[in-house]
Amino acid sequence: MAKNIPYKIYLEESEMPTAWYNVRADMKNKPAPLLNPSTHQPMTAQELGAVFCDELVQQELDNDSPFIQIPQEIRDFYKMYRPSPLVRAYCLEEKLQTPAKIYYKFEGNNTSGSHKLNSAIAQAYYAKKQGLKGVTTETGAGQWGTALSMACSYLGLDCKVFMVKVSYEQKPFRREVMRTYGAQVTPSPSMTTEVGRKILAEHPGTTGSLGCAISEAVEVAVGHPGYRYVLGSVLNQVLLHQSIIGMETKIALDKYGIKPDMIIGCAGGGSNLGGLISPFMGEKLRGEADYRIIAVEPASCPSFTRGVYAYDFCDTGMVCPLAKMYTLGSGFIPAPNHAGGLRYHGMSPVLSQLYADGFMEAVSVPQTRVFEAAEQFARVEGILPAPESSHAIRVAIDEAMKCKETGEEKTIVFGLTGTGYFDMVAYEKFHDGKMDDYVPSDEELQAYFAKLPKVD
Amino acid sequence: MAKNIPYKIYLEESEMPTAWYNVRADMKNKPAPLLNPSTHQPMTAQELGAVFCDELVQQELDNDSPFIQIPQEIRDFYKMYRPSPLVRAYCLEEKLQTPAKIYYKFEGNNTSGSHKLNSAIAQAYYAKKQGLKGVTTETGAGQWGTALSMACSYLGLDCKVFMVKVSYEQKPFRREVMRTYGAQVTPSPSMTTEVGRKILAEHPGTTGSLGCAISEAVEVAVGHPGYRYVLGSVLNQVLLHQSIIGMETKIALDKYGIKPDMIIGCAGGGSNLGGLISPFMGEKLRGEADYRIIAVEPASCPSFTRGVYAYDFCDTGMVCPLAKMYTLGSGFIPAPNHAGGLRYHGMSPVLSQLYADGFMEAVSVPQTRVFEAAEQFARVEGILPAPESSHAIRVAIDEAMKCKETGEEKTIVFGLTGTGYFDMVAYEKFHDGKMDDYVPSDEELQAYFAKLPKVD
Repeated sequence: MAKNIPYKIYLEESEMPTAWYNVRADMKNKPAPLLNPSTHQPMTAQELGAVFCDELVQQELDNDSPFIQIPQEIRDFYKMYRPSPLVRAYCLEEKLQTPAKIYYKFEGNNTSGSHKLNSAIAQAYYAKKQGLKGVTTETGAGQWGTALSMACSYLGLDCKVFMVKVSYEQKPFRREVMRTYGAQVTPSPSMTTEVGRKILAEHPGTTGSLGCAISEAVEVAVGHPGYRYVLGSVLNQVLLHQSIIGMETKIALDKYGIKPDMIIGCAGGGSNLGGLISPFMGEKLRGEADYRIIAVEPASCPSFTRGVYAYDFCDTGMVCPLAKMYTLGSGFIPAPNHAGGLRYHGMSPVLSQLYADGFMEAVSVPQTRVFEAAEQFARVEGILPAPESSHAIRVAIDEAMKCKETGEEKTIVFGLTGTGYFDMVAYEKFHDGKMDDYVPSDEELQAYFAKLPKVD
Repeated sequence: MAKNIPYKIYLEESEMPTAWYNVRADMKNKPAPLLNPSTHQPMTAQELGAVFCDELVQQELDNDSPFIQIPQEIRDFYKMYRPSPLVRAYCLEEKLQTPAKIYYKFEGNNTSGSHKLNSAIAQAYYAKKQGLKGVTTETGAGQWGTALSMACSYLGLDCKVFMVKVSYEQKPFRREVMRTYGAQVTPSPSMTTEVGRKILAEHPGTTGSLGCAISEAVEVAVGHPGYRYVLGSVLNQVLLHQSIIGMETKIALDKYGIKPDMIIGCAGGGSNLGGLISPFMGEKLRGEADYRIIAVEPASCPSFTRGVYAYDFCDTGMVCPLAKMYTLGSGFIPAPNHAGGLRYHGMSPVLSQLYADGFMEAVSVPQTRVFEAAEQFARVEGILPAPESSHAIRVAIDEAMKCKETGEEKTIVFGLTGTGYFDMVAYEKFHDGKMDDYVPSDEELQAYFAKLPKVD
């Protein structure tokens, strides 16, 4: 029986997880390995070590250890902003007049404004431990760049961020937050890298993409001694670090005897979704429990729902390893009217394998319906959600309304990954009726699929 | 003996205060009453009732009840974002290498981004209870307007906000957040009110001030049946509602056996400072304990440190009651290069009386030193502070550095009122070396003092 549930469940420091959970250990079909783009052979630890920090390479390749201890220094940093609250959405339930019980895990209460900090501090920590001078990365909407800047500033590491040009120009405040934390921010594509110059020559006037920015960041990391590249999503290691979200959620639910019927998360590269669902997916994989697990993606960037499951490049410059994932093709860029993040062409290999094996569902939603949900949520729950997070809100509301029709008292848990303070331009478009719901055509996608690398 | 202190102390729901504390009950010298601007007689409840909600008028005039019950509906709303954490600034202490123990009460973890929501929900609640259609208000930097919009949206009340024109133009995102919550936002001075037209005729091209916006909001409230005016600071009722900050702080400190040596808060109109210090001031007034209590204000708007203690108009249009307070004169407007809030010409009558009676200290700080502290704090504590809050950070750091010199292990508590997400223009100026430290001249202030109303 559920006890009397408070609005917000906070764990005590003593209840916080001391290890990350590695869902790969419980997967019968392991995620496909990263391949060397030239030889199409699995990337070795040594090859990966040229790009990534050594200990992160180990985590990337470790498909077997179910738990990996969180170093004390990272646990201390987590204490600055964790545990994040698990909130019972009493006000939303009341507004919807639904018998469903809705909970959300809110990751926005830190200055980076999102869950990205959970992996940023881990990656920066291992870079520091390896004695590196700094790290390079890319950022789109800016949450990841902000989180990494914060982590690097805390540890005294240099931080070079390639920011997708369109975001750099449209979000000067995001850039300014990164500067406050001492990061160097370069709009991408830039003339500072070979791959940037090549992309600019081929596509003059391009406003950039995550895929371009990744290529530039990798080039700079590989070309500068004492630097490595770090990434905020997609990779196995990122999902590992983000498992803290799901583990805290599960501990909080267990404490009150609550068993969710479904778990809903937005999905771009998969960092939040993979983290949120990991312990629940673990139970499901081990046959100990069953849950509906739902990935929500933008209709304008629908990798799960309309992509293909195949090896593809992780970046536009094709300098990174190949990953087997649901992908729209590495040349795909969502329409410029798409607001917020969730704009990566691919998807986490771990989540891709789980989806291919039928352990989770995926739905795509058009952005005006996402902003309707965002506004409805903000007005009753008092949190201004990020556009990304609002994808999960949309489907949580839809599911709660189904419960209203059927009278079922289902328990819905969703991930509220962050806040929308830097997305007011998008909110303004929505208020002014200037937001539309562009969706890529089948022909457009087929053209990208045709360019996928051929891997035997 | 202090127990092992966690990074963040959260109260349980069951430990949260159920009543606000009214510091006036423990003041021997009560704050001076508001006066009718025509007759110079104390405002009666009936007169005040034309402008303010009835129950708020009672709270405004109640100098005797030490505790006022918080209605259950407000307590339920508080649960959505309270208790706010009391954070031990371990990382800042380490960075400063100080023996001082530093704590801050963080009020920024809600969408309004500041403590203003504590009084906004209370004022909106009483308006709703009285059966009103809506409320009017003014906002400068935008925190108060955002908070009130959220509260009104939650309760289904209409909300009309007059936003100081310069902020309306410089902070379109703040405006957009208010729109998300369904508020009507009008730049002030506007042509929609008599007083606005008069001010525009006299000062064409003025970018507005809080004093102007108050006059317009009051005019609209008085002229529309079913509307009342609400205010986010200065008033006794606001300090009463904000006492929740100090009470939570005191309960959290008591729980761990911590006795602060000093309590530091930024001061504009006094809403945060008055709330934070209230239970500590109560002990001091009753002779049960002693604390240093320090108000920090901008050198560009120094009402405590360079103002006079006298009756003055609360607004530029001179339609509001007179209040006895430390004031720079109702015509005073801080230089345009002053960033953030804390720009009101006067100060809470309660705090003014306490300061006049020697129960607290005040210091003023130049804004570049404030932003230095803000950036230093952000980099180690991970929270991007509002410029307003950073005034308190500046003095907390200064006091901690004094402890480093003397070796004293003092316990410092300060109020971190909010986040700086909408203040990145100011951070950018600071980073680019374009921020200066304008301070009003004695001659300028004397000219304003000469225009103070003559009250016998």
